[in-house]
Amino acid sequence: MSSHEKTKKTDALHQLLRISEKWYQQLEAGEIPSISLATRTKRNLAYDEQHEVWKLGNLERNRVAVTEKSARHILRIAYTIGFLKHQITYNRSSTLREMYYISEGWKKAKFSDQHESNMLVEDLEILTDVQREHFNLRPEENGASIFGPIELREQTRRGPKKIHCQDDVGEAGYQIPTTVEQLDLLDHDADVVIAIETGGMYARLIENQFDEKCNAILVHLKGQPARSTRRLLKRIHDRFELPIAVFTDGDPWSYRIFASVAYGSIKSAHISDLLATPSALFIGVQPSDIREYNLPSEKLNERDITALKAELTDPRFMTDYWTEQIHIQLQLNVKSEQQAFASRGLDFVTDEYLPTRLADLGVRLR
Amino acid sequence: MSSHEKTKKTDALHQLLRISEKWYQQLEAGEIPSISLATRTKRNLAYDEQHEVWKLGNLERNRVAVTEKSARHILRIAYTIGFLKHQITYNRSSTLREMYYISEGWKKAKFSDQHESNMLVEDLEILTDVQREHFNLRPEENGASIFGPIELREQTRRGPKKIHCQDDVGEAGYQIPTTVEQLDLLDHDADVVIAIETGGMYARLIENQFDEKCNAILVHLKGQPARSTRRLLKRIHDRFELPIAVFTDGDPWSYRIFASVAYGSIKSAHISDLLATPSALFIGVQPSDIREYNLPSEKLNERDITALKAELTDPRFMTDYWTEQIHIQLQLNVKSEQQAFASRGLDFVTDEYLPTRLADLGVRLR
Repeated sequence: MSSHEKTKKTDALHQLLRISEKWYQQLEAGEIPSISLATRTKRNLAYDEQHEVWKLGNLERNRVAVTEKSARHILRIAYTIGFLKHQITYNRSSTLREMYYISEGWKKAKFSDQHESNMLVEDLEILTDVQREHFNLRPEENGASIFGPIELREQTRRGPKKIHCQDDVGEAGYQIPTTVEQLDLLDHDADVVIAIETGGMYARLIENQFDEKCNAILVHLKGQPARSTRRLLKRIHDRFELPIAVFTDGDPWSYRIFASVAYGSIKSAHISDLLATPSALFIGVQPSDIREYNLPSEKLNERDITALKAELTDPRFMTDYWTEQIHIQLQLNVKSEQQAFASRGLDFVTDEYLPTRLADLGVRLR
Repeated sequence: MSSHEKTKKTDALHQLLRISEKWYQQLEAGEIPSISLATRTKRNLAYDEQHEVWKLGNLERNRVAVTEKSARHILRIAYTIGFLKHQITYNRSSTLREMYYISEGWKKAKFSDQHESNMLVEDLEILTDVQREHFNLRPEENGASIFGPIELREQTRRGPKKIHCQDDVGEAGYQIPTTVEQLDLLDHDADVVIAIETGGMYARLIENQFDEKCNAILVHLKGQPARSTRRLLKRIHDRFELPIAVFTDGDPWSYRIFASVAYGSIKSAHISDLLATPSALFIGVQPSDIREYNLPSEKLNERDITALKAELTDPRFMTDYWTEQIHIQLQLNVKSEQQAFASRGLDFVTDEYLPTRLADLGVRLR
């Protein structure tokens, strides 16, 4: 463990124990234990000018252990803090799902489903201002990967490993771990990072050597990107001042992938400043591309149309660019996948489309 | 490209062109072009004693280009052969989805959906006795990974890369490429391969250093395993004579994951001898484990019950062992996930459960 990481863990433990210390103080003073939790609804989202992201506002709800429900909630928090204390002290880690199963032994503090335990962990993140990664809690799956001119060092159980994401990996790339806090970003030789929705397009860019020809770091998002993937993009952007460009399918669900990279999501609004990269660029597939390149397409279904209309009133999409593009799409009444570019030949996307779009977006390639 | 791989590609091309040569001969002889395709239904599955797997039988259907439908089918095969010839000759590759989009330019030979083009590729595999991997066709996604005492060499566009799957990778492991034909299996120091359904359990075994303590190669199946993952398991088994043990959730869908590793699936029955490892062992979660270890569980729903009953009449599950276990599960009326072992502590699965089960199954660990 690096000394930086050690400090983070000590701090995490300290912040967690502060919560339970307050209960001891309350009990000693003859008060009923209570806890204040931030309200996590759309109503409590506020724009953070400094970081240019949407974050949680100041609305709070105070829970006092005067009802069984509130008492049980505080009991659960106490058990969870105890579990995390043990985990941090002995340098163990667990998945969110394992923690839910572990609560089987907590009698009255047992969670009734995993949604409940996940929510509680997010509440602890808000209360402590510490990411769950520093509590050694990880998600089930990740599997996102990275390929390109970037060198990093991962702290593993077998010591630090230096990995160059072209020279030291297979053609599928370096697999991003479930927590990226133990990664040090060492060096790079890139002009841009391309974050790609589908595995097919990621493999296409690797086969066509787009990473070499255009000095691009390629990141496979695997659909809606995990927290660790978004955090890594943000860290690469901050550390190396590289532009992040997002390349997805051309449908409303994919625009949300872009939005979660650029502006954050409601679910993780309390850590938007750590996860979101507000300067991220949207490459496409743009609705206007479907028309311009006459891409194979499919008709919008009702859910697509509803989602597009919802985006028109989503603050994250309230720009001239998105308003125009969404109107074009509703008018064309079609959507296209990024692999639809294959209809113009396997090299079109790397020889024509991407260089043109990146130039349009002001990305300078050598 | 290795010389072995080169021979494979030359052979693939030769086999493909034989199909179209036959049409030329038919046309020269004044006959209407035709093609015989194997029937791909349950009815045409036959047990292959030699390889101990279920394979396609001898039923065939002859399609003669006397109807528009049959003529169009033959035209599509011809276009596809032409495309694959180009791809093999210039050492390009594409995803199955890209090939479908490419057919946009084939006029009357255009596929109406990707199911159609995927099926045609499988037909070509049967006709040529060559795997689609040697046509340079790959699937969209894979993302399965491997961690443990095994060393392999991947042929990449940047030359061969030797990778030790403990020493040269991050904690998420080596990412299995979409085609594993370009992998050479070099060396190992293992007693067993554990193929694991979920990412949570895969990470648990890595964290608990089960790979070191029990000399185990850990493979993350990512749910229903891709062809490349099954092919790699089979190759590791054949090359190193290592037992393959499959560790899944305890529900009917997970038993099918085991069956596809051990016996193959209807969809890829024509290459079962390449993909299936008939000696693969099922670790669990066994229905009897749910009872014995009092695991947290969930009630079976109607779909689960129907699936379990279907398995009772599936030839792949017609053994005393499976009949007993499925009856136990129907009687208990519950299912459990593999991560449910966490309710007995984070080390129970690696310190108690797996060593006991592997010993029961006759796997000798050092």
